[in-house]
Amino acid sequence: MAASPYQQLEQEFRRLHAFRGAASLLRWDAAVMMPRGSASVRGEQLAALESECHVLLTSPKVSRLIERAQASAGQLEDWQLANLREMRRERDRAIATPVSLVTRLARATSIAEVRWLEAKQEANFALFAPHLEEVVALTRDKAQVLSQALGLEPYDALIDGFSPGFLSAEIDQLFRAVSTRLPGLIRDAIELQSGRPPLSIAGKVSGSKQRSLAIEVMRALGFPFDRGRLDESDHPFTEGVSGDVRVTTRFVPQEPFTGLMGVLHETGQALYDLGLPEAWRDQPVGSDRGMALEESQSLLLEMFVGRSRPFLAYLRPLLERHYGVAGAEWEIENLYRTLVHVRRGAIRVDADELTYPVHIMLRFELEKHILDGTLPVRDLPGAWSDGLEARLGLRPANDAEGCLQDVHWALGNFGYFPSYALGGFIAAQLYEAMRSELHDLDAEIAAGRFGGLIGWLRENVHSVGASLSSQELIKNATGRTLTAAPWLRYAEAKYLEDRG
Amino acid sequence: MAASPYQQLEQEFRRLHAFRGAASLLRWDAAVMMPRGSASVRGEQLAALESECHVLLTSPKVSRLIERAQASAGQLEDWQLANLREMRRERDRAIATPVSLVTRLARATSIAEVRWLEAKQEANFALFAPHLEEVVALTRDKAQVLSQALGLEPYDALIDGFSPGFLSAEIDQLFRAVSTRLPGLIRDAIELQSGRPPLSIAGKVSGSKQRSLAIEVMRALGFPFDRGRLDESDHPFTEGVSGDVRVTTRFVPQEPFTGLMGVLHETGQALYDLGLPEAWRDQPVGSDRGMALEESQSLLLEMFVGRSRPFLAYLRPLLERHYGVAGAEWEIENLYRTLVHVRRGAIRVDADELTYPVHIMLRFELEKHILDGTLPVRDLPGAWSDGLEARLGLRPANDAEGCLQDVHWALGNFGYFPSYALGGFIAAQLYEAMRSELHDLDAEIAAGRFGGLIGWLRENVHSVGASLSSQELIKNATGRTLTAAPWLRYAEAKYLEDRG
Repeated sequence: MAASPYQQLEQEFRRLHAFRGAASLLRWDAAVMMPRGSASVRGEQLAALESECHVLLTSPKVSRLIERAQASAGQLEDWQLANLREMRRERDRAIATPVSLVTRLARATSIAEVRWLEAKQEANFALFAPHLEEVVALTRDKAQVLSQALGLEPYDALIDGFSPGFLSAEIDQLFRAVSTRLPGLIRDAIELQSGRPPLSIAGKVSGSKQRSLAIEVMRALGFPFDRGRLDESDHPFTEGVSGDVRVTTRFVPQEPFTGLMGVLHETGQALYDLGLPEAWRDQPVGSDRGMALEESQSLLLEMFVGRSRPFLAYLRPLLERHYGVAGAEWEIENLYRTLVHVRRGAIRVDADELTYPVHIMLRFELEKHILDGTLPVRDLPGAWSDGLEARLGLRPANDAEGCLQDVHWALGNFGYFPSYALGGFIAAQLYEAMRSELHDLDAEIAAGRFGGLIGWLRENVHSVGASLSSQELIKNATGRTLTAAPWLRYAEAKYLEDRG
Repeated sequence: MAASPYQQLEQEFRRLHAFRGAASLLRWDAAVMMPRGSASVRGEQLAALESECHVLLTSPKVSRLIERAQASAGQLEDWQLANLREMRRERDRAIATPVSLVTRLARATSIAEVRWLEAKQEANFALFAPHLEEVVALTRDKAQVLSQALGLEPYDALIDGFSPGFLSAEIDQLFRAVSTRLPGLIRDAIELQSGRPPLSIAGKVSGSKQRSLAIEVMRALGFPFDRGRLDESDHPFTEGVSGDVRVTTRFVPQEPFTGLMGVLHETGQALYDLGLPEAWRDQPVGSDRGMALEESQSLLLEMFVGRSRPFLAYLRPLLERHYGVAGAEWEIENLYRTLVHVRRGAIRVDADELTYPVHIMLRFELEKHILDGTLPVRDLPGAWSDGLEARLGLRPANDAEGCLQDVHWALGNFGYFPSYALGGFIAAQLYEAMRSELHDLDAEIAAGRFGGLIGWLRENVHSVGASLSSQELIKNATGRTLTAAPWLRYAEAKYLEDRG
């Protein structure tokens, strides 16, 4: 019997998945293993694979098959229908962006990335400005064509590329809700913590000791080392596909927790990838539901679980065993205070859980105005400094610590930043729902038993794949649509607990 | 101006090169880094890339462009003409083998490989025989279709896939020339060596010490670690493309030279890859000239250079520094005798330089007769044992040490084995020519200066790429067509030097 149009589509997207998995491994290798001088060769390989994916998605054959499969959609099961919807989504986005635009963006961003690094090293925005302007112009073109094709506002069309289904207006609403309460919360938390500063944790812990601890923790969380790896790279990341997930972190001898927190963060995403519906793993419906959901899984493990007293109760004997440490500064309460310490600062990636959303809201405002033209690129440094001062009461020392600190815009990733904050809000709502169902969760965590926690996430998030929209997924898992209220409740309980 | 048909072809083959480079990296990763449970995922990625290469080579577009480029060949430069010839060659081979046959062979060999390993572990050929039979039947089909398309005898069409331009009849002639002299040579060498057995080299050298020595030697040979790596794997191999070459070896603490000799062998191939004509590196004419030439570069470094007194004079102080060894057994003369020790044995990969061609000649005879049907697969174990006894005077203890020792036939690689012996003959002829031009070569090697040696290979072999046929390349480099005489001269001088 000949394959149906839908079955042929599955075959085409299976190829797409294989190409993307190959590209993911090439990116992992480039960051972890590749010799320095091989970047241009690798760039050609990645470009060839990406262009092949674009050719596949925009081929007349795939479009014809999608129309024919749609015509006989009555014969498809629910998962197949969801898969067909995701295929359309990918096809629509690919067809909307002509190859010439993709190529120009790739060229402009690859130059802008180099110039960004130079400008950051010299703390001189002027070196980067013309390149950012070109990236912005091309990103506007991209937003425009996607907007027409998808029926979304231009900025929403960009957000949709990272966190499908989230609209700028909804994010605005969440951010406003948080903004009314957050400045006071930060102020109160800092005041409360200043009365009980943690003892400083001095001394070095070798990378190999930190690695052996991290591996024991990853095993306890259920990371399968027969289908994944832990390596080191300049910045922590997760790459790979659901049968071969590669986590990286960075172990710094002077900072005994930086590497471990990176591992928890990345393991959250890795377990998401590993828990995607196995039967659909090479199809669009079997992929994750975008950056915001991914970030929720990362933050849930790092912030909600990792930076908690129950987790530190589990960790304490492991620290003794792997690090060979003892003393008052290694007591659970002191570790906890160290890991939840709130501090206003200029750098996003160094920010604590409470001030982090402030950095995101600043970027959200600025990138909207850059894209709609109300903020000229040349005025970015001033707008950045003013915005940070208005929100956190401090100005960056220079552009390197200001608007040059992140690479995202150089890469054309406008619409990406909101995912980080959305991830926190989603994590809070998921964690609240989970805690109402799993009553002995703290005791389980303290005992190093994470099966219930991961099982809940697997059932309610991971195994859903992309079969539901982000909002449906959250509503199914928690019983309500996403709001900032759980995050605010969580933040108040955690950071104002000492208040009388 | 629109791109000419020839320029469009270059663009298509640039894509092919990128896909193949990606596949090569995926294979490297599978052998060196990949978690055990990820094999099936990796298999899908490699199959998708390989099938994409086949689609590209067999596309009507590429064939049309080849015909049009050929029609205006008068406007092409010599390198471009050679490139076009290699494009045709690849296209012709791909078009001759239908996808259905490629797919069936891929399936049959992947099963046969697993069964071969089981059969080898149980030393039971019967477990493997039916699977080998299927692979043989499909390989015969492949040889047949290639034979018709290329105008070659079926077995020659298979050899051509590994070492282009070598014919079975020429190999026969070389083997006959060697055969008349080799049995006596082996006998005399063993007798001479038995009078002065080397002191045994006891003690363990850690993998990390062996690695640091190997890296120093690779650097001295000119291996660029900014465009390549050294790692460990079960069996030494080289993967990658000319801008990113990955060498592996295996360090065994009890065997202080196994890993280093593997490194020399693989570095020979790696330097070939790295010395290919830079301007043509992503085109067919910029690739190596096949397995026999590759093997010649490996053997030249491992056997001709590495197992020589001048090289050991260079190595001696490095051994002291890296291994921290001393004593009579570590003196140059004893190391030399250890590394050129001749011993009759059943296993090809353990064979010394002198008995090695015997193992190849056995396989050459047997695979010809398997393919033409005069040797039924079920009779292979007996024919193997009889052949080995006739040639080396010993019988394998069982099938695992007999006809099950190599994986090549399970993978359908008939026509591959001759390359190993051809590589030795080519290396000898190149080395003889090189020595007549570089008069102080031994002194240079003893001083750890390999620039002249590698420079000669770069000029005469590496930089030629695939612009000449194998025979033309050898004739240009050495002034004469390939014969076995230089190898016999080299072998007699090296192994009968003590004879009065």
